[in-house]
Amino acid sequence: MAVVPESRVLTFGVFKWSSYSSTYLPENILVDKPNDQSSRWSSESNYPPQFLILKLERPAIVQSITFGKYEKTHVCNLKKFKVFGGMSEENMTELLSSGLKNDYNKETFTLKHKIDEQMFPCRFVKIVPLMSWGPSFNFSIWYIELHGIEDPDVVQPCLNWYSKYREQEAIRLCLKHFRQHNYTEAFESLQKKTRIALEHPMLTHLHDRLVLQGDFDACEELIDKAVGDGLFNQYISQQEYKPRWSQIIPKCNKGTQEINRDDMTSDGDDNRPGMRGGHQMVIDVQTETVYLFGGWDGTQDLADFWAYSVQENQWVCISRDTEKESGPSARSCHKMCIDSQRRQIYTLGRYLDSSVRNSKSLKSDFYRYDIDANTWTLLSEDTSADGGPKLVFDHQMCMDSEKHMIYTFGGRILTCNGSVEDSRTSEPQFSGLYAYHCQAATWSLLREDSCNAGPEDVQSRIGHCMLFHTRNRCLYVFGGQRSKTYLNDFFSYDVDGDHVEIISDGTKKDSGMVPMTGFTQRATIDPELNEIHVLSGLSKDKDKREENVRNSFWIYDIARNNWSCVYKNDQAVKENPSKALQEEEPCPRFAHQLVYDEMHKVHYLFGGNPGKSCSPKMRLDDFWSLKLCRPSKEYLLRHCRYLIRKYRFEEKAQSEPLNALKYLQNDLSLTVDHTDPVETKEFQLLPSALFKSSSDFIPLGFSDVDQTYAQRTQLFDTLVNFFPDSMTPPKGNLVDLITL
Amino acid sequence: MAVVPESRVLTFGVFKWSSYSSTYLPENILVDKPNDQSSRWSSESNYPPQFLILKLERPAIVQSITFGKYEKTHVCNLKKFKVFGGMSEENMTELLSSGLKNDYNKETFTLKHKIDEQMFPCRFVKIVPLMSWGPSFNFSIWYIELHGIEDPDVVQPCLNWYSKYREQEAIRLCLKHFRQHNYTEAFESLQKKTRIALEHPMLTHLHDRLVLQGDFDACEELIDKAVGDGLFNQYISQQEYKPRWSQIIPKCNKGTQEINRDDMTSDGDDNRPGMRGGHQMVIDVQTETVYLFGGWDGTQDLADFWAYSVQENQWVCISRDTEKESGPSARSCHKMCIDSQRRQIYTLGRYLDSSVRNSKSLKSDFYRYDIDANTWTLLSEDTSADGGPKLVFDHQMCMDSEKHMIYTFGGRILTCNGSVEDSRTSEPQFSGLYAYHCQAATWSLLREDSCNAGPEDVQSRIGHCMLFHTRNRCLYVFGGQRSKTYLNDFFSYDVDGDHVEIISDGTKKDSGMVPMTGFTQRATIDPELNEIHVLSGLSKDKDKREENVRNSFWIYDIARNNWSCVYKNDQAVKENPSKALQEEEPCPRFAHQLVYDEMHKVHYLFGGNPGKSCSPKMRLDDFWSLKLCRPSKEYLLRHCRYLIRKYRFEEKAQSEPLNALKYLQNDLSLTVDHTDPVETKEFQLLPSALFKSSSDFIPLGFSDVDQTYAQRTQLFDTLVNFFPDSMTPPKGNLVDLITL
Repeated sequence: MAVVPESRVLTFGVFKWSSYSSTYLPENILVDKPNDQSSRWSSESNYPPQFLILKLERPAIVQSITFGKYEKTHVCNLKKFKVFGGMSEENMTELLSSGLKNDYNKETFTLKHKIDEQMFPCRFVKIVPLMSWGPSFNFSIWYIELHGIEDPDVVQPCLNWYSKYREQEAIRLCLKHFRQHNYTEAFESLQKKTRIALEHPMLTHLHDRLVLQGDFDACEELIDKAVGDGLFNQYISQQEYKPRWSQIIPKCNKGTQEINRDDMTSDGDDNRPGMRGGHQMVIDVQTETVYLFGGWDGTQDLADFWAYSVQENQWVCISRDTEKESGPSARSCHKMCIDSQRRQIYTLGRYLDSSVRNSKSLKSDFYRYDIDANTWTLLSEDTSADGGPKLVFDHQMCMDSEKHMIYTFGGRILTCNGSVEDSRTSEPQFSGLYAYHCQAATWSLLREDSCNAGPEDVQSRIGHCMLFHTRNRCLYVFGGQRSKTYLNDFFSYDVDGDHVEIISDGTKKDSGMVPMTGFTQRATIDPELNEIHVLSGLSKDKDKREENVRNSFWIYDIARNNWSCVYKNDQAVKENPSKALQEEEPCPRFAHQLVYDEMHKVHYLFGGNPGKSCSPKMRLDDFWSLKLCRPSKEYLLRHCRYLIRKYRFEEKAQSEPLNALKYLQNDLSLTVDHTDPVETKEFQLLPSALFKSSSDFIPLGFSDVDQTYAQRTQLFDTLVNFFPDSMTPPKGNLVDLITL
Repeated sequence: MAVVPESRVLTFGVFKWSSYSSTYLPENILVDKPNDQSSRWSSESNYPPQFLILKLERPAIVQSITFGKYEKTHVCNLKKFKVFGGMSEENMTELLSSGLKNDYNKETFTLKHKIDEQMFPCRFVKIVPLMSWGPSFNFSIWYIELHGIEDPDVVQPCLNWYSKYREQEAIRLCLKHFRQHNYTEAFESLQKKTRIALEHPMLTHLHDRLVLQGDFDACEELIDKAVGDGLFNQYISQQEYKPRWSQIIPKCNKGTQEINRDDMTSDGDDNRPGMRGGHQMVIDVQTETVYLFGGWDGTQDLADFWAYSVQENQWVCISRDTEKESGPSARSCHKMCIDSQRRQIYTLGRYLDSSVRNSKSLKSDFYRYDIDANTWTLLSEDTSADGGPKLVFDHQMCMDSEKHMIYTFGGRILTCNGSVEDSRTSEPQFSGLYAYHCQAATWSLLREDSCNAGPEDVQSRIGHCMLFHTRNRCLYVFGGQRSKTYLNDFFSYDVDGDHVEIISDGTKKDSGMVPMTGFTQRATIDPELNEIHVLSGLSKDKDKREENVRNSFWIYDIARNNWSCVYKNDQAVKENPSKALQEEEPCPRFAHQLVYDEMHKVHYLFGGNPGKSCSPKMRLDDFWSLKLCRPSKEYLLRHCRYLIRKYRFEEKAQSEPLNALKYLQNDLSLTVDHTDPVETKEFQLLPSALFKSSSDFIPLGFSDVDQTYAQRTQLFDTLVNFFPDSMTPPKGNLVDLITL
């Protein structure tokens, strides 16, 4: 395995600049004098475009860039900038998009310097300031260092690869263009001379069968085999998830008949849990059982304990009143976690109204339930006395089955209502990060609540999300609030290394790109797919509730460190009101529960508070499952067949309309899902092709090409999209590179 | 001639948007409700990128865009934006870069919709806000209308042209690439099939002779003929002017010997005018005679009158004291203009020290000098009494020979020093725009000094530039100051139509792109080339003088309405200190005179105040000519021969070094200007080619091509640059379109 050379300081000069003001020359970035306020480049204004172009002494792999700063914060520091690089000024790629903290510390950023695993060289680096910390101030850069590899033994092969890559891609675009336009001789000469492949041989074969031969049966066979060989898997993995909510109507205990939905009373009958918010659910993935305990029904705390079997589609009431069975008293805003391995459930914390808070009741009791033995054990009368957390609510708790540990973080500490003079307790206190060693039954305080900004400090909070990743053994914490302040930081805690890692400090305004804070978030984790799922609902804060807020569902890709939105219903409603209603989903709410079965990839949601100002005591008792769906292989195969046959039909329609009609009604109809309204509607419009003239649609730019050839080429281009990029012709088109 | 169809309102929808905030939806731009503050699109922030993409109902020629506004000014209005358009989202061209006024009036802008004279179609229009009036506010757009042509009879041919154009340019890039890489078969197949020409046949012939045949003599002949046929003229016209200052050492009156520069005394001898500032010069282009009158020598006003003959290189003193010859008394800061047709010179205005100002002396006398008769005539004792301007200084005056009119504008009105209680006169007054009808000897007041912002209002000032364009018959006025305020507006006045046109109101900060205000500007006009030339020197204001200010020279292209900088010496000094010293130029100064011979394209400069704080009375008496030079045809021909022979030498050096050396010393040496240090130095380095290996430099991306072929191709590409774009292969390269 080749030794990767060290990154060294690269030599460069300032090549071009957009402007500069006064004596703040571009060249000043070459010296690092943090105490000299004039030792910087300053643009003449902040009107775009502003930039500096640096020229490296020799081509190099540019791996990182370091920005020096002034000794104090400065309004001209770059809050947002981009860095580009390339072998020529005109042809540069974006290497970095980021921003500096407004402080006095140097900051180093990795620059993109590879395509897949291939390093590419740069001769020019362009820094483009976009935003300064002081909104109307000029942009300043104090000092720049570039690091990378200059060693010709490393760089020359990269330069060679770069030339070869560009030549290859240019020729492939030519080949694609020539073939589309049927410049056969030119195509063959070029291919023979350069020996560059336009695409995988399988696709050349597809092109031959489809476009040149019109052998549609052979096409279908080829697609069939491709799907079977898993070639469409990359395409599937790139598709967006579609959420499918399904309301669960469980069987009643009495017999196997399903309950009529109209029969469901709001009293919470024997068959299933009644309406509530602030309850807790956990799921035992091994047995597909959802456990639900406690909550608040609008009037009082609850102490009933239920189990739902997914297989049986049935709730069973384990206990009407756990207190009577040596278990916890009625409570809400507690937290539960499950040890599936040992088949035990833990519960900690609860909310107490100020009227009932007295020093006696402020004990943080801690219970464990053994599923198989059906018994409760009081692990501690007061965890605080045991070195653990005080009585808290709206905290988070996670189970680490492997090491038999429990982690709890945050929550608001409940305090006694002392006398009026006791003002010390008016400031809310938040609980830190604790670990419970199940075997030893002891607590450790891992992190106190801290508002310091040190690298290992954590700020406690309520209403946040905390998840344990069983494979990388990290806790993931994000969101929540402290009093009126909504937090949107995101950090992980390595439980074995006792180390905090900031994923996002929440200062960068990524609006629209991450789930919005301030809306109740319920999160779950899939350690196998390495994803965190977040369902955002209704804000608890009455002032923040908008009439038409709807749920939004986000997925955080842990490996790629990026959020994507599965759906964001406020926009869907605005775009297409009917679309939102087509698919049922639970109404937005807070104080509900969401659990995830990572084995079967299903979420379950129960109850909560719908926040109806006219009915403040109303709680929900609905029960839903959520599946995130992508197109299946079978669906794609059917879809491709449909496309091929639809085109075949359209070709037939030109020359033999009667046969075309028969073909439509038989072969083509077979590929349509007649239960799907969208597909059915499209199918019903197809016969109009029988009445169209043959030249109704010639794609722009193809007027010189035989129409059948052009249309078969279009079908080919469509089918090709399902194949992995490594197999297909380039996606771009030669003519699209021509700008006016 | 085809009738150009009317521009109509185009139908479009909002297709995509970067973001929006609250209820300020993108669709709101479709309705015009200026009194509804919520009827607008507002971005979610002003972080780039922000945009709206509009999709037209059908492809159209988009000729203009109209922005509606709110009924009041608004911080979210767009101070700066760009508009792009194209047939697809990915492939758009910039159509407009501008900004809105922050008011409540609709504004309409023409959009680029033609390439040369060919209209091109758009389907998508993208609006990109760059800057709002309130620096940290979101961007808002209230209402958008697009106007253009939708009629398919007009649009379809444009679409066809567009497809064809893109296809053609794409194929030309392929042909260029294939030829460079010697993919001969592919090149020929493609050319035969598409019948698209890579270049003008002359250049194909040049390529054949040079690259394929290595027939360098034939190349030189071809270039020779091309230059002779004027084919390099377009290239020449695109070159920047290089300024060539030359100090004029006139002959003395006594005999034909040139004066030794060291002999020149500072007393102002009989031979030439003495040192002065605030004098006046005019030039009689017909006879190439420069006339100089009056000024201030540091101690007193002057009344001597001189004529310089360019042909004779000699000054003649017409009069030692014009007052003695019925002409004007000694004066400075007067203004003169010449009627070359009638051979008469006029002078108006002067500066009077406050100590000598009394009501008697505040008469504005007006004199005319007849060149052939050598006589002065007092036209008026006091122009103010005749309905003309009061006594002014630092005004401007222009001659309109054709209509026999004189125009004078601005200047500060000299007032009596009244008693201390007379505070009315403390506010400086500036003189308006007057016309003098020479035949009738009457004055008209065209525009009073006005600080209103109406379309026909003009603000008077001092130290400004005013020029008369004899062909379009407009006065051009710019710059100047009122008290402490420097003005940088620029307007024209149509003398026949009595109409003011604002060219630039000076509010847009085009820093660096126009001559800076506050520095003494001397301007001249070339009606044939349609250019205004501005020489900026030293500021009169001591506080503004920088140690190392140097002259800068700008050209304003009247037709294209744009300024270009010929040189800006502060930057040249910073970049290359030795460069500035290589070429002599007059030291920066103020109160000097600059005149222009538009027939021979020469400027003349005399004297002025160098602003030496240690010698405040020092004035200059140096005399310079300035020519703005572009490469000549002869120079380019020699240069091309040099390039061809240099390459030929390098080719020979590989195989027959002795012959190569002989060739260098003879044929190649012939093409070098051995008096030019730069050319000589390069020539002296050439022999090193005799010692280089053959593969010392292979251009990136051409490692697969025979080296001789590649290097001859490079020479071909270099020579091709001198030909007009309409004849050459495309400038771009296929591989440069590939981005990583």
